[in-house]
Amino acid sequence: MALSRLARTHSKQSGKAISNYLNETGILCEAAPARKYYFYSVSNFADSGNLKHLSGLGKIDLLVFGSRGIRVTPKYQYPSAERILEVSDSEYGNPRLPGLEATRPGEKPRVVVLGTGWAACRFLKGLDTKIYDAVCISPRNHMVFTPLLASTCVGTLEFRSVAEPVSQIQTALATSPNSYFYLASCLGIDTDKHEVYCETVGSVGLAHQPYRFKVAYDKLVIATGADPLTFNIKGVKEHAFFLREVNHAQEIRRKLLLNLMISENPGISDEEKKRLLHCVVIGGGPTGVEFSGELSDFIMKDVRERYSHAKDDIRVTLIEANEILSSFDVGLRQYAIKHLTKSGVRLMRGVVKEVHDKKIVLSDGTDVPYGLLVWSTGVGPSEFVKSLNIPKSTGGRIGVNEWLQVPSVEDVYALGDCAGFLEETGKQVLPALAQVAEREGKYLVGMINRIGQQNGGRAFCSKGITLGEPFVYRHLGSMASVGRYKALVDLRQSKDAKGVSHAGFVSWMIWRSAYLTRVISWRNRFYVAVNWATTFVFGRDNSRIG
Amino acid sequence: MALSRLARTHSKQSGKAISNYLNETGILCEAAPARKYYFYSVSNFADSGNLKHLSGLGKIDLLVFGSRGIRVTPKYQYPSAERILEVSDSEYGNPRLPGLEATRPGEKPRVVVLGTGWAACRFLKGLDTKIYDAVCISPRNHMVFTPLLASTCVGTLEFRSVAEPVSQIQTALATSPNSYFYLASCLGIDTDKHEVYCETVGSVGLAHQPYRFKVAYDKLVIATGADPLTFNIKGVKEHAFFLREVNHAQEIRRKLLLNLMISENPGISDEEKKRLLHCVVIGGGPTGVEFSGELSDFIMKDVRERYSHAKDDIRVTLIEANEILSSFDVGLRQYAIKHLTKSGVRLMRGVVKEVHDKKIVLSDGTDVPYGLLVWSTGVGPSEFVKSLNIPKSTGGRIGVNEWLQVPSVEDVYALGDCAGFLEETGKQVLPALAQVAEREGKYLVGMINRIGQQNGGRAFCSKGITLGEPFVYRHLGSMASVGRYKALVDLRQSKDAKGVSHAGFVSWMIWRSAYLTRVISWRNRFYVAVNWATTFVFGRDNSRIG
Repeated sequence: MALSRLARTHSKQSGKAISNYLNETGILCEAAPARKYYFYSVSNFADSGNLKHLSGLGKIDLLVFGSRGIRVTPKYQYPSAERILEVSDSEYGNPRLPGLEATRPGEKPRVVVLGTGWAACRFLKGLDTKIYDAVCISPRNHMVFTPLLASTCVGTLEFRSVAEPVSQIQTALATSPNSYFYLASCLGIDTDKHEVYCETVGSVGLAHQPYRFKVAYDKLVIATGADPLTFNIKGVKEHAFFLREVNHAQEIRRKLLLNLMISENPGISDEEKKRLLHCVVIGGGPTGVEFSGELSDFIMKDVRERYSHAKDDIRVTLIEANEILSSFDVGLRQYAIKHLTKSGVRLMRGVVKEVHDKKIVLSDGTDVPYGLLVWSTGVGPSEFVKSLNIPKSTGGRIGVNEWLQVPSVEDVYALGDCAGFLEETGKQVLPALAQVAEREGKYLVGMINRIGQQNGGRAFCSKGITLGEPFVYRHLGSMASVGRYKALVDLRQSKDAKGVSHAGFVSWMIWRSAYLTRVISWRNRFYVAVNWATTFVFGRDNSRIG
Repeated sequence: MALSRLARTHSKQSGKAISNYLNETGILCEAAPARKYYFYSVSNFADSGNLKHLSGLGKIDLLVFGSRGIRVTPKYQYPSAERILEVSDSEYGNPRLPGLEATRPGEKPRVVVLGTGWAACRFLKGLDTKIYDAVCISPRNHMVFTPLLASTCVGTLEFRSVAEPVSQIQTALATSPNSYFYLASCLGIDTDKHEVYCETVGSVGLAHQPYRFKVAYDKLVIATGADPLTFNIKGVKEHAFFLREVNHAQEIRRKLLLNLMISENPGISDEEKKRLLHCVVIGGGPTGVEFSGELSDFIMKDVRERYSHAKDDIRVTLIEANEILSSFDVGLRQYAIKHLTKSGVRLMRGVVKEVHDKKIVLSDGTDVPYGLLVWSTGVGPSEFVKSLNIPKSTGGRIGVNEWLQVPSVEDVYALGDCAGFLEETGKQVLPALAQVAEREGKYLVGMINRIGQQNGGRAFCSKGITLGEPFVYRHLGSMASVGRYKALVDLRQSKDAKGVSHAGFVSWMIWRSAYLTRVISWRNRFYVAVNWATTFVFGRDNSRIG
């Protein structure tokens, strides 16, 4: 099968001796499994009308690409419906599609990584580029240091301090002749041919004609992440901001400063002013709490000084259906509630029913007018993951075994927020945390490097190679800042275990230094430290750019 | 007249004694001049059909607001044409329009400043807020340190390091109860009533319903700047980037990094790759030269290292119709030409005829394919300035006398790129330079403060007050960096005068330190220094956000 695959792919490059297909140790690889195709929406292309095609593709754009950035998703201008209809199952496999062909003997095996989040970047960082060529495919060229994203919205940190270009994490992507970073979304995978099908992406506001290409892989690492959960509540995608990407933070910042300025303009009624200056955060997880904390810091320190006309009307409300910080220790939870309330954050129990332009309607009928709405209610599987026709874990993630392999196919691995243990492993699906993703990336790259060292790097060649110990996750603890130099640190291994938990200034110091040491590059480590120092001395920056 | 104005404005606040209208020293102000109205497009509103109204308003948005940012100009969604038709001459004067009424005796006189460029900000910085209340109206809330803008496009500097919030330049705007910053564009001025008419502006990508308001002034300072010259060449506004605002720099950066990444994608032909990586700069003035120099620095240092797949195809071409840096000394010009050529910048003599999506057509018929086009051919009067029906200087700027007064009306001053000496002064119109604008701002605020000290701050009250020496501009010299730690410094007072001129590394040191000391706040001074140091140590940042 491996032979036939290679033979077919290279059909135009005749004259290759069969002996070439032996791997470097001279062992002919084991036969490949039966053909399996996992296309996204291939059936859609074949079965349904134009509108459905468009909406199908729309979804991909939304989720694979801008994804967590529904608001900033570029709207591709497909020249015509014909163009989409052209694309079919057969087109995917058509050799006319440009791209990287399967690697040939003598070349290094190619690892294709989908995504540039925590898992993907940790994996890429550790990859032994003496053994492998790397191709990273993602609609964004940088990793986002998500735990500090909330701080950038109010100007405590610069946006760039929390973004790390992937080509700096793994320099081979930029410098090695057969390694690449492609700014593109993945549309589908053919696990039999060992190929992924991609579409280039443009940029917000920049005209770009997307086109498709394919990349053959020897090993495929899926780390495309998850999407924010909206529970299909009407109006969320249209009116709420998420906080998952740097451009989300930029938009939140712009909106916040715009509202502050508009509220000063003459002719604004008191009611409208109060609405404009009402910041509502939905979801009491760490992101929601940290964002509320940062906002209240901003209000208490900077707004009072620099927007004195607005200082009495600006408010922050945090709405949560259940408990805030439900994964934290009870003591810490109470501390957080006390502290947030003291900082002026109004905590509200409620379930959102609908989101309108200027107000939220709760399920008990209450109207909550808002000027800025940030949605942070956790994540769920992306449309891309949903579209893959492979066994899923509880919660709809890509099912993996204890070695992070997708067991039904060969040479495919999944990790991070898009992956979950299959039920048969008897393990629980891990929470969608940076910590988990990073640890998985580290584990998997070690394994893939070992496989490469044992000459199992090539497609269909890793059977029989010892994989080593399965992946075991040990929770190192949770942290969340609540503003005003205070944070929570929960070092328990799980929700019900016993362990150290701490809240206050010392925790905040731990929070800051822990994050500072985890920022990947020295450049950004330096910048984050400088940003913090500058904010401390000069206050937050409040220029509104763009 | 002053009395009648106040009486009319306050007609609803009855019970004010006439004696109130005496100024603080008890001297009744001199009578006001004959009524004069200077509305923008008032006649348009009355005379023409719907389409014309819309285009008239469109122009304002374009030029007064996004202005130098044609590409980023928000498209207002006027709910209906009716809404625009409503606005008429009478509506402007209608007391229903919300806003700030004329100041009353007992209150501080109000200085209204239009703009947040060099002139406006230098003026605001020096304003004696013990004497005056300040209202600043501008579609942007920060000053841009324009000489360093070119450096931000390639990541040498952070965007925020070159932007300074106006409320930090003049803190009274944020903290004083009767001083305000309004995020709005000015639509028209009624110099008789001493009122300006404004419209709030939104933000790119943020829904905002604009509305109008008025602000009465005691003194009006017009410093709305100029607009880039396109010579009505077809396609410039659609396809070229300007480099006048921070968001222009952001867009140029995004486009540059996007092109670099797309050029790596599989399936790109060699020709298309060369096109994508061809950066064309039109205009050989200091901005064009500095941008070309920064680009070639970026290519020679960073692209070679981080985009090795692109390094052989990326090129910079600088097209100028005449001489580059024509205001500089001949020796410096030759140095610049030699240095730019050595750095890989192709210098081309040519006149642009048309700009298309992917190519420029020169007047001799040559096609120049491009991936990024930056337009920097100087500035001319904005639509707002054109619309004001007052005597103009050569070149169509607002005509001022030697004290920067608009002599045909009272209490109105103009400075910076939007103002020029009237022919009758016998003085030449000064070049559109930051240096000129800043010096004018400094001069004017001194004069306005002196007028205030002599109790002439109130509307119609400055006649007979000694204005002091007229404004005299002394050119301190010109500087331009040409990349690779080299710059030009020309200390001649004028084009034909003799004086010191220098080029090379020492000039570059002078260039850097001169600019560093002129960055307004310590925060940004610190940041620029840190940025430079970081770029030196770690190289330029190349994360592509948004």
